[in-house]
Amino acid sequence: MKLKFTKMHGLGNDFVVLDGINQTINLDRQQIRQLADRHFGIGCDQLLLVEKAKGQADFRYRIFNADGGEVEQCGNGARCFVRYVHDHDLTKKSEIRIETLSGVISPRLERDGNITVNMGKPVFEPKQIPFIADRCALTYQLEMLHTQVTICALSMGNPHAVRVVDDIASAPVVTEGALIEKHQRFPNKVNVGYMQVIDRNHIKLRVFERGAGETLACGTGACAAVVAGINLDLLDYQVVVSTQGGELTISWQGHDAPVWMTGPAVTVFEGEINL
Amino acid sequence: MKLKFTKMHGLGNDFVVLDGINQTINLDRQQIRQLADRHFGIGCDQLLLVEKAKGQADFRYRIFNADGGEVEQCGNGARCFVRYVHDHDLTKKSEIRIETLSGVISPRLERDGNITVNMGKPVFEPKQIPFIADRCALTYQLEMLHTQVTICALSMGNPHAVRVVDDIASAPVVTEGALIEKHQRFPNKVNVGYMQVIDRNHIKLRVFERGAGETLACGTGACAAVVAGINLDLLDYQVVVSTQGGELTISWQGHDAPVWMTGPAVTVFEGEINL
Repeated sequence: MKLKFTKMHGLGNDFVVLDGINQTINLDRQQIRQLADRHFGIGCDQLLLVEKAKGQADFRYRIFNADGGEVEQCGNGARCFVRYVHDHDLTKKSEIRIETLSGVISPRLERDGNITVNMGKPVFEPKQIPFIADRCALTYQLEMLHTQVTICALSMGNPHAVRVVDDIASAPVVTEGALIEKHQRFPNKVNVGYMQVIDRNHIKLRVFERGAGETLACGTGACAAVVAGINLDLLDYQVVVSTQGGELTISWQGHDAPVWMTGPAVTVFEGEINL
Repeated sequence: MKLKFTKMHGLGNDFVVLDGINQTINLDRQQIRQLADRHFGIGCDQLLLVEKAKGQADFRYRIFNADGGEVEQCGNGARCFVRYVHDHDLTKKSEIRIETLSGVISPRLERDGNITVNMGKPVFEPKQIPFIADRCALTYQLEMLHTQVTICALSMGNPHAVRVVDDIASAPVVTEGALIEKHQRFPNKVNVGYMQVIDRNHIKLRVFERGAGETLACGTGACAAVVAGINLDLLDYQVVVSTQGGELTISWQGHDAPVWMTGPAVTVFEGEINL
């Protein structure tokens, strides 16, 4: 089977994108793992499959992790999806309705080429994060081995702990982050973000991702950090988030509003592989 | 600049190969780093450049590490080079003379598609390895923190320490290997191989590579292990080496003979990138 593919990234979170509209694609778990392998295959964090919608949407969008398992959503992936269908002339619309495993999403291509994605509403109720606490609070004290640390806790579809630090460069992301990730009060483990507030519209962020360690950029982590910073009255409603992989703009009007994430998507190269 | 490229691997050691004969290629260090980056570029261990020979050889061959620095030779890379020039109809010869930074090499395409490379002569003289010892010996006792370990020491163009173990799966490759790599008796550090002898014509091997940690397969490490095993009279002159990345056949007639390495080279995909 000969497959054409496009390699893309959003802030260094990288994807192999396959056109399942003009090509017939039927990949098993083992083939996805092979494509995702960085030495024996193409290499990517995740594989994106562009398909025709089954319902009223413009497209259907499926995402697979490098281990071959299908997952629900990914902000960086959604941005690459929009860039892809435009660059490959599959649509002329700037707001695109896409069926995903977790419902229809409507990302928007901005005039400057960036893409805006609705990342859903933050959830603060401890049980839903899940986080063990006897009440919902702005901050929590987390008991560590010889000390206590202050965190915010929320879910952006996945659990996040956010720490405010004075200096992002010296933040104990890998050491302390690994301990918080597996803290007993987070039964499903947790992503741990370290945020340095530059001003009310700009933060620097590093994230220790659950099961992955520190990554170049974490979309839901950027959302969680900005939401936490707005709740603590450290930030205004629209904030530029600088990560190692690049910049995102996150906006949130508070309360029941969804979080919007705007950022770039980049095509790296086009290729063809025999599978 | 639009560049066509081929992604290849030899036992998981992976390469971006560029045709510098039919394309004009002039890459600076930063561009090589970008191409080698696994998230923002194509991704590879090393970049291979196929050029016209300056002298009497068939081709010239340049290799760059992912950090952009030019290096001398690489057995896995030489195999991919031969596969590449054949698959791209740049030659019909089965024995090819290639100019490299370290002289002309003559790899050979076998009938079964494997490629045989002359890996040069092993060097046992401690000073030339370099290894601090008062005489040249078959084995050495290396003083560790609370114990001593027995090693063979030799150079295959780069320094190697070889340990014989009963069970490759439980060998302390990462822990002990990291300590031997930086042992004070190896002034330029050392690659550390762990070899389990299956029979006189078959070993299993894991290698802790200098500056890189455990890798899928190390060509010079396979040569060093077989040479050490022959010297210890554990092995015959031709030996299959099973590594995590696949199998190599190493042969050595002893004394002043060069070591020959036979193994596969695989084309993974073809691509085109804008630089």
